[in-house]
Amino acid sequence: MSYLRTDIIDTNVRISLPAVCFVWQIAMIILFGVFIRYNYESDTHWVEYMAQQNITSNIENDFYYRYPSFQDVHVMIFVGFGFLMTFLKRYSFGAVGFNFLVAAFGIQWALLMQGWFHSLDYTDGKIKIGIENLINADFCVAGCLIAYGAVLGKVSPVQLLVMTLFGVTLYAVEEFIILSVLHACDAGGSMVIHTFGAYYGLAISWVLYRPNLDQSKRLIGSVYHSDVFAMIGTLFLWMFWPSFNSAIAYHGDGQHRAAINTYLSLASCVLTTVAISSVTQKKGKLDMVHIQNATLAGGVAVGTAAEFLLTCYGSLIVGFCCGIISTFGYLVLTPFMEKSLKIQDTCGIHNLHAIPGFLGGVVGAITAAAATPSAYGEEGLIETFDFTGNFKNRSPNIQGGYQAAGLCVALVFGIGGGILVGLILKLPIWGDPADDACFDDEAYWEVRPE
Amino acid sequence: MSYLRTDIIDTNVRISLPAVCFVWQIAMIILFGVFIRYNYESDTHWVEYMAQQNITSNIENDFYYRYPSFQDVHVMIFVGFGFLMTFLKRYSFGAVGFNFLVAAFGIQWALLMQGWFHSLDYTDGKIKIGIENLINADFCVAGCLIAYGAVLGKVSPVQLLVMTLFGVTLYAVEEFIILSVLHACDAGGSMVIHTFGAYYGLAISWVLYRPNLDQSKRLIGSVYHSDVFAMIGTLFLWMFWPSFNSAIAYHGDGQHRAAINTYLSLASCVLTTVAISSVTQKKGKLDMVHIQNATLAGGVAVGTAAEFLLTCYGSLIVGFCCGIISTFGYLVLTPFMEKSLKIQDTCGIHNLHAIPGFLGGVVGAITAAAATPSAYGEEGLIETFDFTGNFKNRSPNIQGGYQAAGLCVALVFGIGGGILVGLILKLPIWGDPADDACFDDEAYWEVRPE
Amino acid sequence: MSYLRTDIIDTNVRISLPAVCFVWQIAMIILFGVFIRYNYESDTHWVEYMAQQNITSNIENDFYYRYPSFQDVHVMIFVGFGFLMTFLKRYSFGAVGFNFLVAAFGIQWALLMQGWFHSLDYTDGKIKIGIENLINADFCVAGCLIAYGAVLGKVSPVQLLVMTLFGVTLYAVEEFIILSVLHACDAGGSMVIHTFGAYYGLAISWVLYRPNLDQSKRLIGSVYHSDVFAMIGTLFLWMFWPSFNSAIAYHGDGQHRAAINTYLSLASCVLTTVAISSVTQKKGKLDMVHIQNATLAGGVAVGTAAEFLLTCYGSLIVGFCCGIISTFGYLVLTPFMEKSLKIQDTCGIHNLHAIPGFLGGVVGAITAAAATPSAYGEEGLIETFDFTGNFKNRSPNIQGGYQAAGLCVALVFGIGGGILVGLILKLPIWGDPADDACFDDEAYWEVRPE
Repeated sequence: MSYLRTDIIDTNVRISLPAVCFVWQIAMIILFGVFIRYNYESDTHWVEYMAQQNITSNIENDFYYRYPSFQDVHVMIFVGFGFLMTFLKRYSFGAVGFNFLVAAFGIQWALLMQGWFHSLDYTDGKIKIGIENLINADFCVAGCLIAYGAVLGKVSPVQLLVMTLFGVTLYAVEEFIILSVLHACDAGGSMVIHTFGAYYGLAISWVLYRPNLDQSKRLIGSVYHSDVFAMIGTLFLWMFWPSFNSAIAYHGDGQHRAAINTYLSLASCVLTTVAISSVTQKKGKLDMVHIQNATLAGGVAVGTAAEFLLTCYGSLIVGFCCGIISTFGYLVLTPFMEKSLKIQDTCGIHNLHAIPGFLGGVVGAITAAAATPSAYGEEGLIETFDFTGNFKNRSPNIQGGYQAAGLCVALVFGIGGGILVGLILKLPIWGDPADDACFDDEAYWEVRPE
Repeated sequence: MSYLRTDIIDTNVRISLPAVCFVWQIAMIILFGVFIRYNYESDTHWVEYMAQQNITSNIENDFYYRYPSFQDVHVMIFVGFGFLMTFLKRYSFGAVGFNFLVAAFGIQWALLMQGWFHSLDYTDGKIKIGIENLINADFCVAGCLIAYGAVLGKVSPVQLLVMTLFGVTLYAVEEFIILSVLHACDAGGSMVIHTFGAYYGLAISWVLYRPNLDQSKRLIGSVYHSDVFAMIGTLFLWMFWPSFNSAIAYHGDGQHRAAINTYLSLASCVLTTVAISSVTQKKGKLDMVHIQNATLAGGVAVGTAAEFLLTCYGSLIVGFCCGIISTFGYLVLTPFMEKSLKIQDTCGIHNLHAIPGFLGGVVGAITAAAATPSAYGEEGLIETFDFTGNFKNRSPNIQGGYQAAGLCVALVFGIGGGILVGLILKLPIWGDPADDACFDDEAYWEVRPE
Repeated sequence: MSYLRTDIIDTNVRISLPAVCFVWQIAMIILFGVFIRYNYESDTHWVEYMAQQNITSNIENDFYYRYPSFQDVHVMIFVGFGFLMTFLKRYSFGAVGFNFLVAAFGIQWALLMQGWFHSLDYTDGKIKIGIENLINADFCVAGCLIAYGAVLGKVSPVQLLVMTLFGVTLYAVEEFIILSVLHACDAGGSMVIHTFGAYYGLAISWVLYRPNLDQSKRLIGSVYHSDVFAMIGTLFLWMFWPSFNSAIAYHGDGQHRAAINTYLSLASCVLTTVAISSVTQKKGKLDMVHIQNATLAGGVAVGTAAEFLLTCYGSLIVGFCCGIISTFGYLVLTPFMEKSLKIQDTCGIHNLHAIPGFLGGVVGAITAAAATPSAYGEEGLIETFDFTGNFKNRSPNIQGGYQAAGLCVALVFGIGGGILVGLILKLPIWGDPADDACFDDEAYWEVRPE
């Protein structure tokens, strides 16, 4: 009986997975053909542009300001997220492989969706892309990969692709509302990426609740080597997070400060994670789950405020608190949510992204509201919060309110979008694994017997 | 009998491997002493040069334009190629260790060989090196590492060093002919690196054909963890390929555009690889071999055209096709080549480098031939194809022809050179493993019993 | 009996580890609050500073000169050192996890200690930090992580944190004496980082000598997969070492040259390591211990002289010698030191850091003493050795003497400091493992049964 079901599922994916990949990729080609062009910095007319604008050096091309950060972010998306999820004893192919698939599709769709909202050239109706668009596409996909963490091992690759299609779409809209309409700042995406992504994933997981998931209990948890693999993911995320939070910050002091604040918050976070992990175990032994995950919460929580004058000790305090909260989350909240709220969260994204992301939004709102011209300098204040054009007369106080409003938007889009998409994913056509085939690479991969 | 043979081989390597390493390294020191000097950007006279040339900032030193890309390329060479080949269950030491050895020798010899052809200062007969030479040396070695993929597990480290000595030499000559004599463009090396390297390796493997290789059948194929290790290689290659194709492109829009095109082609390639891998298996299950390799074909195939106006959708189309072709290559061509053509290709470099490299040369020729001043701008056209000096009057049409000629040169050097070097490597003096000791680290490494 | 002791130890760490983490992290927050501020390049007043100084482009912010190198160094600290130590069959969690903890604490304390000595703004008594401080903090921590290599598997995390607290403190003082008082150069830290760190660790290990360590003999040594994990560490260290040695070198040709010299020295070192490893084994088989470690000695040994006119072949010679010496160190010295000198050196840091670091100091002194205005150019000489201010009249000859004096300072601080700290760590309050529980993750980690 069980065999039969598996058989049907396999057949489904054999048709649906290639079909979705092919059709969507062809759609991407057509849409790119109609809409996407190089921008003035990546086009061969750059040399003429330089002459017109009296730019004397190629080094002023945004490529040189942002490409190193882009590559760091790229590593976070593909190696960081991918390997972080390899901790399960028998789902490493799915972790790193589906992460790869989903991200590769997502960045294309994100270039389009974000392009329509942010990079549309109204003179010719084309989206003009450069290095900053690539970074933003990676960011957008990060939201969907966070959501993947909640449903890891329980969904089919087709479901993941559907989740990504809708996730990127929702992301682009909430991002537009938060950054452009509300004119909130969120360089490292505490709200836009982490809060949205985490609640999106948790809501989906809630809708897809599996009461009999303990049928695959034998496959939950790690083995020695899989924990070491996961540390590759942890470390690349941890090390490159300063690049993540500074990648699209303003040139000059903005990028510089964002990197410093993130570096400090993350360092602080490691110590409190270790402290809580040790003190809560009977024999004081550390738990790899905490070290792999909660150490990263400090990076999430300075995502919004990293480019502000958060101060160096302020960054340390944020990391300090997040290490504690996130580790307690793994100890207390994850089991509670599974039992009482029917939310099964494989990777504990609630503790690593949802809470720290929410806190990051709050920290950002407070830091913005507390900004003063004396601290920032007149010009510095205008530049940091982009108080120009329509927003020329906005005060830091008011900005704090808009930051808080942005956080609510992220929450609403995450939860609301997640429930809707969860319902779509509940349709019995996506080839998801049976309860006893969850967390098992055999469901979707050729696994050679040892 | 078998034991005896192994014994003889081991003894051979114990003399020949240290001898080759020592003698060649001493030769490098002498040749570097005679020929290699810092160039004007890495020499202490840079400060005087700046004053002479009215350069006002150190940031104009080429180091700042290219060093981040160089480091990405460096990671591809040592971690990317090295770990990609760790997929075999019992040849991970050889994969990552010999890759390391070969590359460390190759970059030194490449600095000399490429230096004589491209960086010789005729005023004093010295080769002047800077960051761009280091990148080109890494590129040159990439060709030899590709070739290693075809013979992985079947040759001794001494043979690999000989392969590299000749491979680098041949590379430098074909590169000179293609880039300088024919004045073809090939920033990412579809022709110069991939086509040459792949056919060089395949020709060697053909000459070294082992009819009784199935004696080590038990060691062909992967285990669960070795497949995860290989994904480290795959992902670092995939993520940093935009740096590879843009590393020596022209400053400004050239580097910028090359990175974008490569990013897009690779993304597209992942989806079609997954599609074909799934649809061709009875139960729709994915094969790690395809995910590890065919997903990279899109980077190979835009190597030549990445800096041209390939267009964003053009890049997607290239990746789309390569994912399909490369995966079919693993499914159909590799077994066919082994049975019918007597070419044993351990890593399937024919599918990952030879075909996509050849296609990349063709795409480059077509894109060049189709270039127009209206699309590129007058100045942009001149800069992109370097229509200066002796080549001032060359038209894009003609350039297309020279690009195609360049592809032929790469093919001829790869196949011809490979056959010659294969014959040299067939001499019974290099300590290669017996048929039943192939794919086994025990042949050349101290392996501790578990 | 043994169980009882283990039990007591566990309890100790359950109190002491969280206590140390919490108290020290709170201390960091307070000290950062009192002392640490953004510098002019990471503060919002940068835009005003630019106007005052007639700086026309944000690209002149030091962030863009050094951030890519910083990230490479960061990877070396966390992935490089961490994974290099995962080679033991059952101590990978401790290797990568405690490395993470120690480094996260150390960088904070280093920012303070180094800040007081080097970045104190006397107008307001604050330490002003920017990207260069972050690199220097990473460097400082590297010294402590080297020392960790000597005691790997034999100490508790609390001991490691104490080692780091004192290690960073000693480092900051010796660094101040060497770089500021003696005005010696040491961009890549052959003396300041490697010589100091290695002798610090060796002296501690000597004081903590365990006569009955063979009780955990079963856990010394590697398994197949742990050796592959360790190669991740090796390669990231090897690849990014050019960034390490150039990260804080002078802008322009200084950074450029330091990267080239390091690249060459490391390449040469690989070949002689392989040669010695092979020739000294009965059957010519390579030993992974040598490949993992001795291949890196060339990077250590050009740390001081990398930014000087060491010449390209000079770099090759340094690497050539270090590969030989370091590999012989593993073959001969490590066992000798354990038996005769009672120094148990788990990772063989004596061969990878102490000897090459010392040699690097000597090479630096000689290269400096041999510098001439005709080779460097008048201006180049002044810039390379910073012969300005109080040191305007120093000759290269004299500089060579001061370089040698710096090396002695590093030695004295390393050995003297190590003995003192070793005595502190000998107190029976730190929860170190019993002799038969060494090299075993079970002592401090929740390890799930397979």
